Amino acid sequence: MTFYSPPLEDFAFVLHDVLAVQDSGIPGYDELDAQTTAAILGEAGRLAAEVLAPLNPVGDRQGCRLSNGDVTTPDGFADAYRQMCAGGWAGLDCPAEYGGQGMPYLMNAATGEMFISANMAFNMYFGLTHGAVSAILAHGSADQKATYLPRMVDGRWSGTMNLTEPQCGTDLGLIRTRAEPQPDGSYRITGQKIWISAGEHDLTENIVHLVLARIPGGPEGVRGISLFIVPKFLPDAQGNPGARNGVACAGLEHKMGIHGNATCVMVYDGATGFLMGEAHKGLRAMFTMMNEARLGVGLQGLAMGAVAHQNAAAFARERLQGRAVAGPANPTGPADPVIVHPDVRRALMDQKAFVEGARAFALWGATLIDRAHRSHDPAAEALISLLTPVLKGFLTDKGFETAVSAQQIWGGAGYTRAAGMEQFVRDARIAMIYEGTNGIQALDLVGRMLGADGGQAFRAFLGLLRDALAENADDAQFATEFLEPLKAASNDLQAAAMLFAEEGAGRPEFALAGACDFMHLFGHVCVGLMWVRMAAAARAGLAGGATNAAFLNAKLATGRHYMARCLPATALHLARIRAGEGSVMALDAEAF
Amino acid sequence: MTFYSPPLEDFAFVLHDVLAVQDSGIPGYDELDAQTTAAILGEAGRLAAEVLAPLNPVGDRQGCRLSNGDVTTPDGFADAYRQMCAGGWAGLDCPAEYGGQGMPYLMNAATGEMFISANMAFNMYFGLTHGAVSAILAHGSADQKATYLPRMVDGRWSGTMNLTEPQCGTDLGLIRTRAEPQPDGSYRITGQKIWISAGEHDLTENIVHLVLARIPGGPEGVRGISLFIVPKFLPDAQGNPGARNGVACAGLEHKMGIHGNATCVMVYDGATGFLMGEAHKGLRAMFTMMNEARLGVGLQGLAMGAVAHQNAAAFARERLQGRAVAGPANPTGPADPVIVHPDVRRALMDQKAFVEGARAFALWGATLIDRAHRSHDPAAEALISLLTPVLKGFLTDKGFETAVSAQQIWGGAGYTRAAGMEQFVRDARIAMIYEGTNGIQALDLVGRMLGADGGQAFRAFLGLLRDALAENADDAQFATEFLEPLKAASNDLQAAAMLFAEEGAGRPEFALAGACDFMHLFGHVCVGLMWVRMAAAARAGLAGGATNAAFLNAKLATGRHYMARCLPATALHLARIRAGEGSVMALDAEAF
Repeated sequence: MTFYSPPLEDFAFVLHDVLAVQDSGIPGYDELDAQTTAAILGEAGRLAAEVLAPLNPVGDRQGCRLSNGDVTTPDGFADAYRQMCAGGWAGLDCPAEYGGQGMPYLMNAATGEMFISANMAFNMYFGLTHGAVSAILAHGSADQKATYLPRMVDGRWSGTMNLTEPQCGTDLGLIRTRAEPQPDGSYRITGQKIWISAGEHDLTENIVHLVLARIPGGPEGVRGISLFIVPKFLPDAQGNPGARNGVACAGLEHKMGIHGNATCVMVYDGATGFLMGEAHKGLRAMFTMMNEARLGVGLQGLAMGAVAHQNAAAFARERLQGRAVAGPANPTGPADPVIVHPDVRRALMDQKAFVEGARAFALWGATLIDRAHRSHDPAAEALISLLTPVLKGFLTDKGFETAVSAQQIWGGAGYTRAAGMEQFVRDARIAMIYEGTNGIQALDLVGRMLGADGGQAFRAFLGLLRDALAENADDAQFATEFLEPLKAASNDLQAAAMLFAEEGAGRPEFALAGACDFMHLFGHVCVGLMWVRMAAAARAGLAGGATNAAFLNAKLATGRHYMARCLPATALHLARIRAGEGSVMALDAEAF
Repeated sequence: MTFYSPPLEDFAFVLHDVLAVQDSGIPGYDELDAQTTAAILGEAGRLAAEVLAPLNPVGDRQGCRLSNGDVTTPDGFADAYRQMCAGGWAGLDCPAEYGGQGMPYLMNAATGEMFISANMAFNMYFGLTHGAVSAILAHGSADQKATYLPRMVDGRWSGTMNLTEPQCGTDLGLIRTRAEPQPDGSYRITGQKIWISAGEHDLTENIVHLVLARIPGGPEGVRGISLFIVPKFLPDAQGNPGARNGVACAGLEHKMGIHGNATCVMVYDGATGFLMGEAHKGLRAMFTMMNEARLGVGLQGLAMGAVAHQNAAAFARERLQGRAVAGPANPTGPADPVIVHPDVRRALMDQKAFVEGARAFALWGATLIDRAHRSHDPAAEALISLLTPVLKGFLTDKGFETAVSAQQIWGGAGYTRAAGMEQFVRDARIAMIYEGTNGIQALDLVGRMLGADGGQAFRAFLGLLRDALAENADDAQFATEFLEPLKAASNDLQAAAMLFAEEGAGRPEFALAGACDFMHLFGHVCVGLMWVRMAAAARAGLAGGATNAAFLNAKLATGRHYMARCLPATALHLARIRAGEGSVMALDAEAF
C-alpha cells in the first residue's frame, strides 16, 4: 500500500528562500509570510494525506457508475468533497466577493500539487470547476457572475469544459455542435461532446457546462465558434436549481486510469444555453484561461512523479535484497536494503532531482500568473505564455517517466494492483494527452510562443539565465558544479532557437520536426535554472547558519545530481533538432 | 480496435538479405531457404493475426478466474491453445526425438515475436513451457526426459519456473522453500512461491513445476539451492497423469497488465518433487537457459513496440485533424490526416527505426544462440552472454517507450480501454521487471559479462564494429550517413568501458552507478550496427536491381533516421557515466 507525505519543508524553502514571495511586490503576496503559508499548506497536506490519499485506491477500484443517466462516484468521494468545500479549498484563490478566500493562485498551485499527489482523479472535480470559474470571471456578464460564481466558488455547483467531439480533438475548427438563437436571447444547443471530465456526478447539486458550439450563419472554422453556459438545472429566479435542462450523460469512458473521475459522453438535445462573451469569439474566451489550466496539468505530472518517488524511496529503505558492493550495510539482517545499490539510488536521485526542480519551476510559473493578473504586468503575461507549453509538456512527460521509474524500484510488487504503484503510472499517463497533447504543446511553443512579439519573451527568459549565471560566479566550486552546466544548456537552447530562426523561412517543417525536442531542451534549462536558484539559496542559508542544514545540504547534493546527470540531455535534444526534418519526412505515408 | 499485421517482408529481409542465414554454416540452417522461412512465418503470422490477436482484448477484459483452486483462462484461450499445439508451434525448435519440429531457435524467435505482438499474455503459456523444456533437456535424467519432454513438447503438459518467494526476488540466496529427502529418492517440497506465471490454468492436462528449494543441511545462500521437478499430477507407470500432488494455487495476482496470463501464488505442502541435476547446483541449472529466456523477454519489448507502432501509423493515416504546414494534403476533406504533421511523423519514425533495428538485433541474437548450441561454439556463447542483458534490458525499456509513444499518437482515444492501445502499454510494462529487472540486467552486464574472460567477448564485439565500419567506406554518402554515426557511438562505448576499467579497482560504485546508462549505450550501438548492416544490404539489393526497391528505399530512409536522431543518445549516456557515482551516492538513505 502506498502513502502520501506532504513535502512541507520543500514548499517553505521554495516559497520563501528561493522565490521570496512575500517581498515580490505582487498584490496579495505581502500576506504570504512563512507562518501563513505553513498553516495553509500544513492543513492542505493533512487533508491530502489523511482524507484524499486513502480514497485513491478506492476510486481506482470502483470507478464511476452510470445508471439511468446518473453517475455515482466511488465510496467516500462525496464525503471528502464536502470536507474540502467546508474547508474553503474549492475557492481558495477565488475573489472574496464571490465567497472565495482571495488567496493568490500560487497557493492554489501549491495545495493543488498535494491534493493531486494524494488523489488525482478526485482533485479533477475541483480543477474543472476552477477552470470554469476563471472563464466566467473573465468573460461572463454581471448577471452570469452573480448567478454562477457564488455557487461554484463554494463548491455547491461544479463546472466542466466541453470542447471535444468525435471528429475533433485538437482541430476545434471541425466542431459541429449547433446553437440556435431563441427569441428570449438564449440558445438551443444540440450536439454530442466526448471525454467530458466530471460531466455528470453525484457530488454537487448542479453542474455548469461551458460548451463550444457554432451559431448557424457564422464563419467557418475556429472563427465561428461561440462559448455557452449550459447548466444541468436551469437556475430559477432565486438562482437555485430549477428545471432540468436538455443535457445528459450518455455514456462513461472506460479508461487506463483516473477511474475515480467520470469521463462522460454528453448529449445536448436542444438544451438551453446562454452565450458567454462575444458570439464567434468563443475559442479565444476558452483559451484565455489556458495558461492556468495547462499549468494545472503540468502540476499533475509533477505531483504523480512526487508521490511515486516518495513511495519508491520508502520501499527501497525497507526491501532487503543483496549486499552493498562496499560491504554489508545491514550485517545482522539477511540482506541490505536495496537503497544501498548504486543503480537503485541512481533512479531515486533522477526522480528526486526532477521532482524538486519541477516543483520550483511550477511554483515560479504560478507567481508569474499572479504577477500577470494581479499586477497587470504584460511582461509576466508574455513570459508565462512562453513557459506554459513547457510546464505542461515537459512536466507531464517527465512526471510519467518518474512514475515509471519509481514503479520499477518496487520490482514485481510494483506491477501488482494491490501495491498501488501502477495506479500512479496509469493516472499520470493522461496528463501527457489532455489539455492539448504534448505534441500540440511543442507546436504551440515553437510555432507561436517562441516568436511572439519578435521573440521578446524568449529574450527576457535568456536575460534571466544571464542574471543567474552572473550570481555567485566568484565561488569556483559553485561555478563548476552549477553555473557551467547551466551555461552549456543555455547555449544549447540558444543554438536551437537560432537554428529555427535561420532555417524557419525556407523550411517550415524544420522547426516542427524539432518541436518536441525543443520543448524538452527548454524544460531542462528551466529546471536547471531552478536548481541554480535553489542551490544559491541553500548556499546562502548554510552560510547564514540556517537551522535546517541537513535539508539544505541534501538540496545542494540533489542539485548537483541534476546538473551533472540530467541537464546534459540538452545536447542530445540539440543534436536531434540539428538533424533536421529530412529523415522525419522522408517516407510516404504508406511506407509505415 | 487494434489489429496485427505480420511483418513478413521485414523478416525475409533480415533473415536472408542481412543475416544470410542459409549460408551461415550453423547446423540446421541449410534448410532455411527463403521459401521455407516464408511458409513457416506466413502460417505463424496468419495464426497470430487471425486467431491470437482477436483474443487479446478478451484476455485483458476477462482475466483469469480462480475458483476452488482451479483457474479458468479467458474465453477462447483453450481453443486457440489447441490450434497452436495441433500446428506443432509448441515444439517448433524442440528436438524431433521428443516430437518437436527440430527447427533452429531462430525460427522460434521470429514466430514468437508475432505471437507476442498478437497476444502477449496468451503466448506466455508457451514461453514458460519452452523454458522448462530447455531446462529438462539440459539437466534432466534420461528418465525425466522420457517422461516429461514428449508431453511438454507437443503442448499436452505445460511448464513453470518457481523462483520468487515473498522475501526474495532478485536475491535468491534468501529462498526458504524446503526439500526433505525421502527414502524413495524423492523429496517433500514445502513452501510458498509467488508471481508464478501460468502456475495453474485449464489449458493442459498436467503442469510441470520447476521449483528452487533448499535441502536441509546444505550450504547457506545461493550455493545451497537445488532444482526440483514437481508435477501437478504425479505421472503413473505409463507416464500419464496420476495422483494429485500437494501443490495448489492459493491466489491470483491482480496486475497492471497481461491479465490473460495466470500469475499465481503457489503453495507446496509436502509435495513430491524430483531432484533435477545435482543437489545444491540448482541455481546454476536454472540459469543455463537464461540467455534464451531473457532474449524471449527482450522479444516481448520489441513485439509490443511493433504492434503498437503499426496501430499508431494506421491511425495517423486515417485521423483527420489540422492542415499540413506545406499546404493541404487532403484538400477535398475537412482536414488532413495527422500523419502529415512533422511531430507525429517524428514519433512514428522513432518507433519504426527502433522496431526494425531491434528486430534485426533480436534475430541476430537468436542466431548466436543457435551457433552456441548447434555448433558448440564457445565464442558465440560468450558473445550472446554479453549481449543478453542488453537484449533484455534495452529492448524492453525502449519497447515500452515505443508503446507509450504509439499510444500518444491516438490522442484521447489512446487512453480509452476500448481502443486497445493502452493495453499494449500495460502489457509491455512487465517485461522491464521480470526475468531479472532491467537494473539487474545492467548490473549483470557491467559487473559480470563485460569483464568475463578478460573482456574477450567485448573485444570480439568491438571487432565486429570495426568490420562493419570498414565495409562500404569508399561510398562517401554511406560513410557520412551510416558509418560516421556508428563510429562516434562506438567511440562512446569504448570510452565508457575504458572508464569502468580505469576507475573500477578503487571505486566499485563508479561502474554500478553508470550500469543502466552503459546498457542503453550498448543497446544503441547494437541497433546502430544492425542499421549499418541493413543499410548495406538494402544498398546492395538496390544496386543489384532488386524487385522490392520501395521496401529497400524505405529501409535506408528509416536507417538514416536512426543514425541521425536516435544513435546520438550514446553521448548523453557517456556523459552520465562520466559524471560518476558522487552525486548518486551523496545522500543518506533518510534524506530521500
